[in-house]
Parts: sequence; structure tokens; C-alpha cells
Amino acid sequence: MEEKVLKLGLPKGSLQETTLKLFKKAGYNIHVSHRSYYPVIDDEEISAMLLRAQEVPVYVEKGYLDCGLTGYDWILEQNVDVIEVAELRYAKEGFRPVRWVIAVPEDSSIKTIEDLQNKRIATELVGYTKRYLKSKGIKAEVYFSWGATEVKPPYLADAIVDLTETGASLKANKLRVIETILESTTRFIANKSAWKDPWKKKKMQDIAMLLQGALLAEEKVGLKMNVPKDSLKKVLSLLNSLHSPTISQLYDENWYAVEVIINEKRVRELLPKLKEAGASGFVEYPLNKVIP
Amino acid sequence: MEEKVLKLGLPKGSLQETTLKLFKKAGYNIHVSHRSYYPVIDDEEISAMLLRAQEVPVYVEKGYLDCGLTGYDWILEQNVDVIEVAELRYAKEGFRPVRWVIAVPEDSSIKTIEDLQNKRIATELVGYTKRYLKSKGIKAEVYFSWGATEVKPPYLADAIVDLTETGASLKANKLRVIETILESTTRFIANKSAWKDPWKKKKMQDIAMLLQGALLAEEKVGLKMNVPKDSLKKVLSLLNSLHSPTISQLYDENWYAVEVIINEKRVRELLPKLKEAGASGFVEYPLNKVIP
Amino acid sequence: MEEKVLKLGLPKGSLQETTLKLFKKAGYNIHVSHRSYYPVIDDEEISAMLLRAQEVPVYVEKGYLDCGLTGYDWILEQNVDVIEVAELRYAKEGFRPVRWVIAVPEDSSIKTIEDLQNKRIATELVGYTKRYLKSKGIKAEVYFSWGATEVKPPYLADAIVDLTETGASLKANKLRVIETILESTTRFIANKSAWKDPWKKKKMQDIAMLLQGALLAEEKVGLKMNVPKDSLKKVLSLLNSLHSPTISQLYDENWYAVEVIINEKRVRELLPKLKEAGASGFVEYPLNKVIP
Amino acid sequence: MEEKVLKLGLPKGSLQETTLKLFKKAGYNIHVSHRSYYPVIDDEEISAMLLRAQEVPVYVEKGYLDCGLTGYDWILEQNVDVIEVAELRYAKEGFRPVRWVIAVPEDSSIKTIEDLQNKRIATELVGYTKRYLKSKGIKAEVYFSWGATEVKPPYLADAIVDLTETGASLKANKLRVIETILESTTRFIANKSAWKDPWKKKKMQDIAMLLQGALLAEEKVGLKMNVPKDSLKKVLSLLNSLHSPTISQLYDENWYAVEVIINEKRVRELLPKLKEAGASGFVEYPLNKVIP
Amino acid sequence: MEEKVLKLGLPKGSLQETTLKLFKKAGYNIHVSHRSYYPVIDDEEISAMLLRAQEVPVYVEKGYLDCGLTGYDWILEQNVDVIEVAELRYAKEGFRPVRWVIAVPEDSSIKTIEDLQNKRIATELVGYTKRYLKSKGIKAEVYFSWGATEVKPPYLADAIVDLTETGASLKANKLRVIETILESTTRFIANKSAWKDPWKKKKMQDIAMLLQGALLAEEKVGLKMNVPKDSLKKVLSLLNSLHSPTISQLYDENWYAVEVIINEKRVRELLPKLKEAGASGFVEYPLNKVIP
Amino acid sequence: MEEKVLKLGLPKGSLQETTLKLFKKAGYNIHVSHRSYYPVIDDEEISAMLLRAQEVPVYVEKGYLDCGLTGYDWILEQNVDVIEVAELRYAKEGFRPVRWVIAVPEDSSIKTIEDLQNKRIATELVGYTKRYLKSKGIKAEVYFSWGATEVKPPYLADAIVDLTETGASLKANKLRVIETILESTTRFIANKSAWKDPWKKKKMQDIAMLLQGALLAEEKVGLKMNVPKDSLKKVLSLLNSLHSPTISQLYDENWYAVEVIINEKRVRELLPKLKEAGASGFVEYPLNKVIP
Repeated sequence: MEEKVLKLGLPKGSLQETTLKLFKKAGYNIHVSHRSYYPVIDDEEISAMLLRAQEVPVYVEKGYLDCGLTGYDWILEQNVDVIEVAELRYAKEGFRPVRWVIAVPEDSSIKTIEDLQNKRIATELVGYTKRYLKSKGIKAEVYFSWGATEVKPPYLADAIVDLTETGASLKANKLRVIETILESTTRFIANKSAWKDPWKKKKMQDIAMLLQGALLAEEKVGLKMNVPKDSLKKVLSLLNSLHSPTISQLYDENWYAVEVIINEKRVRELLPKLKEAGASGFVEYPLNKVIP
Repeated sequence: MEEKVLKLGLPKGSLQETTLKLFKKAGYNIHVSHRSYYPVIDDEEISAMLLRAQEVPVYVEKGYLDCGLTGYDWILEQNVDVIEVAELRYAKEGFRPVRWVIAVPEDSSIKTIEDLQNKRIATELVGYTKRYLKSKGIKAEVYFSWGATEVKPPYLADAIVDLTETGASLKANKLRVIETILESTTRFIANKSAWKDPWKKKKMQDIAMLLQGALLAEEKVGLKMNVPKDSLKKVLSLLNSLHSPTISQLYDENWYAVEVIINEKRVRELLPKLKEAGASGFVEYPLNKVIP
Repeated sequence: MEEKVLKLGLPKGSLQETTLKLFKKAGYNIHVSHRSYYPVIDDEEISAMLLRAQEVPVYVEKGYLDCGLTGYDWILEQNVDVIEVAELRYAKEGFRPVRWVIAVPEDSSIKTIEDLQNKRIATELVGYTKRYLKSKGIKAEVYFSWGATEVKPPYLADAIVDLTETGASLKANKLRVIETILESTTRFIANKSAWKDPWKKKKMQDIAMLLQGALLAEEKVGLKMNVPKDSLKKVLSLLNSLHSPTISQLYDENWYAVEVIINEKRVRELLPKLKEAGASGFVEYPLNKVIP
Repeated sequence: MEEKVLKLGLPKGSLQETTLKLFKKAGYNIHVSHRSYYPVIDDEEISAMLLRAQEVPVYVEKGYLDCGLTGYDWILEQNVDVIEVAELRYAKEGFRPVRWVIAVPEDSSIKTIEDLQNKRIATELVGYTKRYLKSKGIKAEVYFSWGATEVKPPYLADAIVDLTETGASLKANKLRVIETILESTTRFIANKSAWKDPWKKKKMQDIAMLLQGALLAEEKVGLKMNVPKDSLKKVLSLLNSLHSPTISQLYDENWYAVEVIINEKRVRELLPKLKEAGASGFVEYPLNKVIP
Repeated sequence: MEEKVLKLGLPKGSLQETTLKLFKKAGYNIHVSHRSYYPVIDDEEISAMLLRAQEVPVYVEKGYLDCGLTGYDWILEQNVDVIEVAELRYAKEGFRPVRWVIAVPEDSSIKTIEDLQNKRIATELVGYTKRYLKSKGIKAEVYFSWGATEVKPPYLADAIVDLTETGASLKANKLRVIETILESTTRFIANKSAWKDPWKKKKMQDIAMLLQGALLAEEKVGLKMNVPKDSLKKVLSLLNSLHSPTISQLYDENWYAVEVIINEKRVRELLPKLKEAGASGFVEYPLNKVIP
Repeated sequence: MEEKVLKLGLPKGSLQETTLKLFKKAGYNIHVSHRSYYPVIDDEEISAMLLRAQEVPVYVEKGYLDCGLTGYDWILEQNVDVIEVAELRYAKEGFRPVRWVIAVPEDSSIKTIEDLQNKRIATELVGYTKRYLKSKGIKAEVYFSWGATEVKPPYLADAIVDLTETGASLKANKLRVIETILESTTRFIANKSAWKDPWKKKKMQDIAMLLQGALLAEEKVGLKMNVPKDSLKKVLSLLNSLHSPTISQLYDENWYAVEVIINEKRVRELLPKLKEAGASGFVEYPLNKVIP
């Protein structure tokens, strides 16, 4: 009888910290020893390995790993044939996508991607960049950059394709974005054969559900408030775009307790309005998981 | 039409970490790039800048910034004319005020501030110290100390005016406190003209409310417990100094669920008493914001 | 009249961080200045001192300290006569016990502890190891190892007695475990005379209760869900091993809100089943203290 | 009889490391304990104190210190009346002067210092800047900047006066230099009364000689080479700008050994020429002190 | 008239520190600002850029750089057509070559490179490895490894080609070397067109000579000793394998001073013998450059 | 035939850095991998191991190691029977001995060691302290302190025996020294049987000679100067306490070149006097080894 073990690849480096925190909130403690590539996970049905995000797609496609987390950018770069189990909306440095852009020196004559014809482009994303330019009918010399891509222009390249989040690094190097060619988040991917194994598929789906529940909880909070009877309608109309507030009558029958799960960012706008509408006694608390 | 942007100064250095955490709990994510002074804040209506706390008062008074967070000590030192939007009860190293004290060597003959007549005093708070001594009728040579003030006596100064929290640094340098001349917390201050702009005033008041809500949540927790019918009165009397516990009947009609928002520090005293009074099944949970 | 002060020893080093976090969750803020051994605690009835875990048992036994936290291993090693007020289930690197094992080189001819007769054993736990071997009728040369015990074999020792958590360090040094001789967690211990002082005893019991409440909260979470009327029975049966879920009817009378305090690790298994059973709208939130 | 002790102020911070290395090469071992301001020096006739470079001039002028090392910039800023015992040609980051420049945003309309009339200038060097501008007949608002001066323009200042070495920081902040107002190196300064004490004066002169000998050795090396008889003239003419090469006949009477003390930087130019002229067997060795 | 500037690529990362030290000893001070890729060099005729060693060969071949320092391994990997100006005998971690080896798990059935037929090989040196195997008539799947190559076997690869110095990392990962396929040191390479420019060629040759002189000085020392007349012959015979000791008569005519430039490693063997032969008063001193 | 290998123990921790530097100057390169206890030494006849200084004496005495470097304090503490091959005059933090002292609180009534009768003494040097006190006829409770001994008094000990260099730590903890009981430097010790093996004995003696030569070079420098004929006598009389200056006539027959090996510390006193006596053109250079 086959042992039930799911081989999981986790991304080392910039995605690692957020990924491990997310697994922790999802209920999996992963302990990474100093300089070890085989983290210990408190689920005997999972065997995990830390790998550079760039390597995960190939090893999953070839079946050396059953599944893994990696960036959408590297999946496209490696051009692999895998199952996308779930999108997980985070990337390096936060809970939002990163963008890969084409950038040129501020004072370059290159204005649009059409101007890239016959130019030199340095990037860590050679494969995808070549396919992208080809699809636009542009011929250019695209070569691999071993990091620090943003300092290559103008001496070593005419343009670059590089990852950016706030644009600060591009600005510091006096580069100008001419086009965004890819937005990338983290993906949970599976090998095609592994996906056909019912036990593995169920296991991966459960992990995906828990990870997504943990991720959703990153942006949501619980909000409780007390509402006098005659403000209830107004308060509920302010909250009405939200899914199902919980309403319960308080000991003092003229007051209701209202509780709602809400995007943390919305709280800062909504709270002054709710207060104006008569609600008071606001209490906001953090969440670990939210699964609709 | 004027663009709606609030220029906000944030204190770099010892107040920075707590300030950014507080903004995060208030609902504002502020991303500070390495070595950047222009943090990115996820509210397009705010333009933030990191500055030394000492610099914030002047720039707010002159109107280069609409508002800012800084210590009460530096507001007094700079002697500026600004609006205090809110007191935020934290300082360097924690959620309590810091004190500025006059200290002298343990074996000094100086016992009271009267003995400071004609003495040399080193301090980073030259302006306020001079005004303070003058108001007491004392003439002394007060000069600026560029840090490490506590090592100046006895060779380079007869006394110092320095900031202290636990007194550990004074003790280690064999200094004795003779008087506290200032207690300081963080203040949210506004430029007088900015305060007259209704949009800016409303924006600042909302931010202040959310920051204070986040700050209050630092010292409060939610506490739930189960109480048998015949203990309810006693339990409620123990809790009666607290604002409005929420009471609800449980499925088993002989038991009530009682929930209360309470100072975390009080829990450690109250819990043994509540238990003795018959309550059980205590669950304490953390809060993000508490707005009465 | 005697001053009411409890002298408390806290473990410096590997247990320190977790211990201080636990005290914080229990409601005690402890501030450790850089290089100071006398932490400031916000309870004037407690006077705390930081000491190596190895030193705490002796100082508590002799009465220089009223009580302290230390590892069970060092209590046995020092062979002291003290009161165990509470077991606190954590150790170096996490909320689980550590093991002390006898290990030998992978290719050693030593297979069982009987083979240790007349062999050289290096360990930091000399006293306990000697007593243990004696109780098994084995004579061996046991000598003290000043750290890095795992590199002693084969040149400087035939076997070692060392602490292990994941076994990674043993493996890296090509050692094989032949027996576990001790499992250790943290203990809150008291001096026998201090325990007879009613005020001190009560104070220690309260601290123990709060620490255990904080510790329990480390592994538990609150879980809320919405359950349609006709799924309630099935859902409750899934939850039935758990202590007292709180059930309340929602506004929409066909739905119930169910809330339960549950081990975080069980959530990952239970959640898919609860979902299948008809529950939805899961919200998991973190806890500070759980006291049954 | 008075004790013979020279009170010496040493600059903490950016000049500290180079200063201590220089003292070491001069023959004085100075041991700075962690967080101590009273370094231990292996000369009982010297009592040293670490102070910010900004503070040294005033304490020397007032006589709290007999002498000290500090930057020429802070001597001018404080406008003190002291003796300059020696110039020591090093500054922050190396054995060359630093420059204080007036800089404005790259796209500012300010082109010359005349354009600064009525403008806002931020600087750490308020006193000297005011005197400098006044001497040029320019009125401007000069105010103190607590660090990060280079990020003040354009919002918080129209121009800055800041220290620069390579210009990299100005460039990164898109600032343009319009004038250099001060070049600064380190100076060994003495109090006027201390200078009148013959013992102190002799001690300071000896220290200055040794420090300058150590400093000179930083840029010089010893260079030995073998020269055949008939190349000697040519080789010596290449070296003739140098002070006194040492020439000695070798065992083989057709060869001479030539040794010279020379600027390290000149070696890289001279060596290819010397080789061409017939010299060979070059050996270059480092020096600790060079005193002409 | 063309400006005389030599564009020089310097290796960032593992070779950087040694390279910069070597340039310093050669007489060139190179200042690398934090996070800058354009180091400042105190020779206006050189314009330097920091690049990953992997990138230098291509940029030199294409002529974007006139010359550069990089590893022989990356020159072969990139298969470029450049001039080798000089071999500089250092690599990562010291003044000796590094080796690229084929390694397999200790318990693998692969014994010789013939056994690699149809196996999976992970490496950072894909190009060279493929050419090497092809030349031996072996077909294997060679794919790129993004670091941590040594943890790839056995799950993700059957064998690896990796860089090793002491073999410690291979041993720790239980790998066995089956063949060394490349020994690599640092090379100073030039673009073919740049080499034809007489000014550039002369400049590169001078730099190469100075770097080699600095490198030679790393392993050599100066050794002086006093030798009595009747021991001179014996002492000289011990030194006779060395190039030209310098002998001079001392004031006391029965003694000679003998000075020799010698490999530091030989000193430890030779010194006891020289002492036995009658020499005494040994003084060994360090060197900056040795150019024969 | 027996393989020729000398097993050498090197002290890990506070003596490690100086020890490795000394070996390097002696001509042995020792490479310590991160977290490895088996350094690689470039002499195949030596097999080295890093151990805590406390452990070296026992392992040498038992013969698990042939020889080792450790502190004299730990040799006495362990009370071992070994050969002292050489004293090496350095200790933690520098080229001078450390002292072990008995210290008591500044305000303690204990004034002399006689007052220690029946007192509690904490120390890391239990064995030696007990023997020392016994030899003085004093009975006291001496117990082991696991570090931070200086904070034990007054609560946990009446006195301590602790290591001190500058006395700064004692002073910061308000302790007063009442007696120095041991001065300690590093010793090169050998196992008695190993010492009887002629090959090992010769090898150890050679190593000792080279280490001592390197150590002597730490405090000595070479000093060259030019002396006019008529000052030679005076200059030589100033130098006359020194062993054998080398004098040679210069090209200009009125001048002599004088070279001497001298303690670096003496240079600072002697140089002003030599200058006054007519010498000039001083050049001081560093040394690697000095072997008389």
C-alpha cells in the first residue's frame, strides 16, 4: 500500500516569510532550521522542501514535487504545463501583486514598445519577455541579467524588464516605465498526475481552502458596535453592502449589538459615518481565518 | 479646484516604530523604503514625510506641513504656536509618558533646584530648560549637549536635564534626580491655517479618532466568561465599575455568557476573584480598536 | 510589618523570549534593559531577576529566590527539593517538550545502553546522567561538556547525552539515538518556606493560573460559524468532543450562530468536514487567555 | 605638586575609527569599552574622553579639556578661540578633506549664491553659514536641520548647506552644487592656558609629531629594487624628485640596491618606468610612521 | 581627440572583497558606496563598474567594457572570445583555485562519469557541463540550479556539478565526488578591439603587473637574519634555492646581515634549520608588492 | 609505520580570534568553516580541533589531544598534570594577562579574605578558588556561577571570584576588589606521553618558537633613521639598552643609517629624544616575527 505523502515545494527568499506566516495562520507550523532546505511541518502527510521560486514550476511539472507555491511570473517564464489550484493574492513585500515593467532611461528616445526594435534589453525574465515582444512583432536582443538589472542602462542595456512595487528603485535609477507586461501574484500549483490522485487532490484542495481563509483574514477584521433601536435602520443601511451582519438584542432592550466581518481598510471610512449615525462602543478585533 | 491632500509629518527614530504600528492598527498601511524619507501610505489624500521629532513642530507651525506627530517636549522646546488635535499616550519605549528630569552626581552638594544658581547645565532641551529656570528665578549656564548627556557630569557639567524612563541610565552613571520638570507624550498637532480648512480639519479629526481607538485597544482586551444564574449578581458587582458588560443567556438556561471590554492589567487581579465568585470558561481575546 | 514582595527568578537565554511573551499575555509587562539582569515588572509585589536556567533551581531551594521558572531537566540535574507549582508546556524553540537522548556515532558498535559499560560519555547533564545509568546498573565515565557536545564523538567521547528537538543536529553530526532518558518542559517552582507563607502562596497560584491561561491560548482559537437549522445536529456531533459550544439563534430564524474554543491544529481537519456538513461563514480569531 | 595629566577629547562617531587607528600607529593603544565614554589609554599621563566632534571645540575653549581632535568645520561653527597644534589631513571616510557645499534642487532657478536672497536654507552648520552669507551681503533664513538635510528641498527648504565627499548623496537626491563654502580636515586643538603650561605644551607637541608621522605613513611605502651599474644613473634620475634614496652596493659588484620612501600612489606610475630603465626585483613594504 | 578612459568590470559578490584589497595593494583606492554599482577609483583614466562575475565575460566580449576581472569558470561557461591579460591566482575564500566537481549521493550506484548516461544533473554551470559531457560521449539531462545545488540530490537530481573548496559542504550533504571537471582562478580579460588600442593595452598591462605584484606579496615575506662568518656558507646553502639573498657585512666584522624574500609558508620549515645552522636575530616583515 | 600527525586543541571563544591571528603570523593558515569544530590547517602534520578553553586541559591530560592552547586559569582549575611547552603572553582582549580577583559589594563589611569565613562565593573557577581559600585556612561556601557572576552580589552571593581586565565591569556593578588570586595568560601545553615522542616534541617546539616569534612581533617594530656622523655616539647611547642596532654608512659619508628592532611603546618616548640628538628621516615599519 502506497504511503500517503504530498510533496510540497515552498519558495525560498522573498516570498518565504509571508508564505510561512500564512501556513501558520492556516494551521500548519513549519520549522526551518538554519541553512536547512527541508523544513519540518507538523503534518506527517506533507513532505516540504524549500526551493527558489524560479525552480518550483519545473520540478512540479516534472513530478519531482506534487505541488508548490511560486510566483505567476516564474510559471510563465518557465512556460510549464501545470494545474493552478489557487491564486494567493500576495507577492514580495505585501498582500498585492507585483508588476513587471519595461523601463528605459528617463532621457531615452524610446517612448513605446515599438521603439524597442533592435534594442538591447536586460532582464531576469528572458523567456516571457521574448514571447511577449514576439507577439507584438518586435525583434530585440533580450539577455539575462544576474540581478541589479536597474543599473544596467544606459551603458549595458537600452531597456530593462524588471519587477517593481512602488517604483522607488526605478526612480532612484532615473528610469521611466513605458509598459507593464505582467502582473504577478503567488499561485498554488499542482502536477497533472498528482491532481488525478483523489487523496492528493483532496489534500491540496483542503490546504488551498485554509491558505485562502488565512489570506482573507489578513485584510478583514471583526467589528462590534452598540446601536440604539432607532438608529438600527440607518446603521444597517451603511453596512448593507456587507455580507450578513449579526444582530442581537442587548439586555437593555433599547440597544442592539451589531457585529460584522469587514475589510480593515473600509473601517477607517465607515467608522466616522457609523458614529454619526448613532452607533457607539466600537470594538475591532483581529481574525485568523475567514472562509465564506 | 484644489487637490485634497493632507501633508503629514511623522517622527523618525525612537517614536517611529510605535507610530507606524499605531497607524497600521488605525487602518493605514505605511511602507517605509530603506533610507527613504517619503513613506508610501495607502490613502491618496495623505502625503507623509518622515522627520526627526525635533523638526516637526517648526515645520507644522510654518505651514510646510499641515500636521504631524511629535513629542510634547519638542513642542515646548520649539515654543511653537500650533493646534493640539489629540494627545496620544505613548512615548519612546512604550505606552506611558517619559519624564525630563534635572539630575546631579550622587555625591553632589546640589540638593534642590535653588542650588543650581550659577551652575553649568548640559541638555538637549536648552530652550525649555532656560525658560523653566527663569520662571523659578534661577540663573545658570545652560548649553546644548549632542547626546550622551548622562556622561557629562561632573567634568563637563554640574547638572543635566535629561530624559528618563526607568531611571536605569541615570543610576548606571551615578546620577541623582532632583526634580522632574516635564512629562511628555506624543501629540498630534496641526497648523493653524490648515485647521481652518474644513476638509483638512475633518480629515485630521478622523485620523485622530482612529489613532486613539488603536491606542486604547493596546491596553484593553475582550473578556468572555460563563456565569451560573445564581452567581450573576456577584460577578456583575465585581465588574460594575466597568462600562456595560454584555450579558446573554446560554442554551442551558442556568448559565449566562458575560462579555466585557476591560483593561488588560485589571484582568490579572480580577480573574481570581471572578473565578471565586463562580464564573468559569474565561476567554480573553485581543483588540485592534476601541472607540467608546 | 513585612513588605509583600515575591522574589522571582526568570530564565535567561533560550527560554527567555517565550517566557517574557507568556508573562505579557498573562498580563505582566516585563522590561529588560540592555545588559541588565534586573528586569522591571509592572507589579510592585514582584521583584524579578534574570538567571541562567541552570541556576534557578539552587537559588530557589536555598531561598535566595521565592520562586522561579526553569526547565525540568535542570531541576533533576540539580536534584533540588522544591515545590512544583505548575508545569508550563514549552521549552526551547516551541510549545512542546525537549528530549535528552543518549546518542552514539552512526557506525558505533554501541546499540543499547547496556553497551555503555566502561565507555566515555560527554554531557551537560552530568548529575542526572550518572544517577540514570547507576539505576540501570551501568558504570561509565561521565564528564562535563562545555557546549558543542554533538561534535565530541568519536574522538573525545564514545557517546553523548544531549538535548534534541528535531534531531537535525544529531543527524548533521552523524549520530544515532539509542535511548531517550528525559523529556523536559518548563516548570514554575517554589521554595518550600515561601510556599508556607499564605500571601506568597496565593500570589504564586494566581500567577500560575494566568500563565497557564496564556499558554493554553497559544494552542487554542475561537471559531465562529453559521449553521442552517437542519445541519445543526450534524455540526454539533462533529464538535461534540469539544467543551460547550455556544449556540445562538440568528436574526434569520433558520440559521444558528455556533461558537467554540478549539485547538488550532484541529481546525485544519475539522473545517472541511464542517463545511461539508452545511456550516459556512467561518471566522477564526486569536485568543490571549483560556482558563477553563 | 600638581599631577601631570593631559585631558584629551576624542571625536565619537564618523571620525572615531580613523582617529583611534591613527593613535594606535602613533604608539598609543586606546581601548573603548562598549558604551563607555572614557576610553582606557596606555599612557598614564593622558586622560581621554569620547565626545561628539561638535562638542570638542567648546569644551577645549572653556578649559574643561586641555586639548582635543575635531573637525575644522566644527571649530568654525562654534567660533572658538583655541590654539591649532596640528592639521591632520583626514576626515570622515578617508585621508582627504570633506567639503561643505551649498546645494539646490537640480531644476531650481537658483544659480549663484546671490540668488539665495530671502530664501530658506537648512543646515547643520547654522553659525558658519550665517556668517558666510552675511560676508557676501546675502540675507536668508538659515535654520537648523537635524540630519537628513539632503531630503529637505524642495518642500522644507530652498537650499541646503551640507557636507559631501563624493557627491553621490547629493546626486541621489537630485541636488546641484552651487558653491563650496568650506573644506575641512581634522585638527588637533589646544586650550590657550594649557598651551602656556610647558609640560602640557611639550606633551601635545610630541603627540602631534607622532600622529603626523603615523598619518604620513598612511600614504607612503618603502620601495626596494636592484639596479645594474649602468642603469643607476637613469633610475636615480627617475627617483630624483624624491628625498634621498639609500644606495648600497650588492655582493655582486655590478648591482646596486636602491631603497626609497615614496608616496604609494606614485608607485603605480613609476614602477613601469623603473622597470623599463633596467631596475628589477622590486619589493614594496608598508610603514607605520614616517617622520622627516 | 578621444578621451583616455579604460572601462573596467569588477566582480561583485564572493570575489569582490579580495579584488578590492588587491587593487588597494596595487595602488588603486576604490571606494564603493552603499548600494552603488559605480565605485569611485582614484585614477581618472579608469571607469569602473561592479557586476556579477557571471556577467563580466559577455560585456567584455561585446565591448561594453574594455576589460574586467572574473572567474575562469564563467569565461568558459559563457564561451566568449576575449584576451586573457593575466591569471590572478585567487578565487572565492582565498589565494588558491576553486574546483568544479561532479558529485553524487554517497550511496549512489554512479561511480564514474560513464554512469551518468541518461541521468539528471543540476548545476549553475550548464553550458560548460554540457560541452564537457558531450566531449566524453555522455548524454545527460543538464539543467540550471538556482543556488543550493548541493541539496538537490537525490530527489531533484541524480548528480550535481558544483563548486567546492574544502569539500565540507559536499560532505555535510553526504555527497561523493566522482570527478573534477574544472579548476578555476580569477582572470583579467580584455576585449579584442580594446587590446588593439596601444594606450589601452599599455594601461591594462601596467594594471596587470601591479595586481600580480600585489598578489605575489600575499604569499611572500621579507626575512632578515644575522649570521656569524663561519655559518654563512651553511646558511646560504639552505637559502640557495631562493633568488638572490642580499648579504652585507655588519659593524662587527664577524657577522653578516642576510636578507631574503621568501614564501611565508617556507619560513616555518626553514627557520628551525637556519637557527640550527647558526643564524639568529630573525626578523620577518610583511610586503605590499613583489615584482621580480 | 605510524602516521605523523599532531592532534592540537585550539580555544574557541574569547581566545580564538587572537590565537588564529597568531598562528597566521607564525605561518599557519587555519580556516574555520561556519559552525565547524574541525578547522582546516595548511599543514598535513597537524590535526586541529576547536574546543572551549575549559575543556582543553582535560583532553590533553587524558591524551585525546597531543597538545593544545588554553588559559593558565583553566589549567589550574582542572588541576591537570601536563607539560607547559610555552607561555604565550596574551589573554582575552589583548596582549597582557587577565586577573582573577575576589570582589565584594562596595559597601560590604568584608575587607580582607579573612572576612570570607562562612560566606557564600559565586565563581566560574570553583576548584581553584576552593584550594586557594583552603590554603589560607578559610572555610566558605563556593558554588558555580553560570556566567554574569558580577550581578550575583549581594542577593545571591556575598562575594565573587571573577575575571577582570580593566575593572570596568566590576565598577559598573559597584563591586570592590579585595584580592587578586591569579594572573593568567595563554599556555601551550602538551600531553606527557606525546612529549616523549621525539617527532611530536620537535614539532611542538617548532610551533612554539614560531608562535612566540609572532607574539614578540606584536609588540616590536623596526625603526630606521639617518644620523649625522657627529651625533652617532649620542644616538647610540640613547639606543644602547637595545640589542644590536645595525649601523651602515650612507653614500654621503657624513651620514649613517641606523636600524633597530624596538618595542613599539618605547618609540613614542624615544623618538623626540632621538630627534633632539640629531637623528632624522625616521621610518617605522611593522614586523611579522621576531626570533632572537
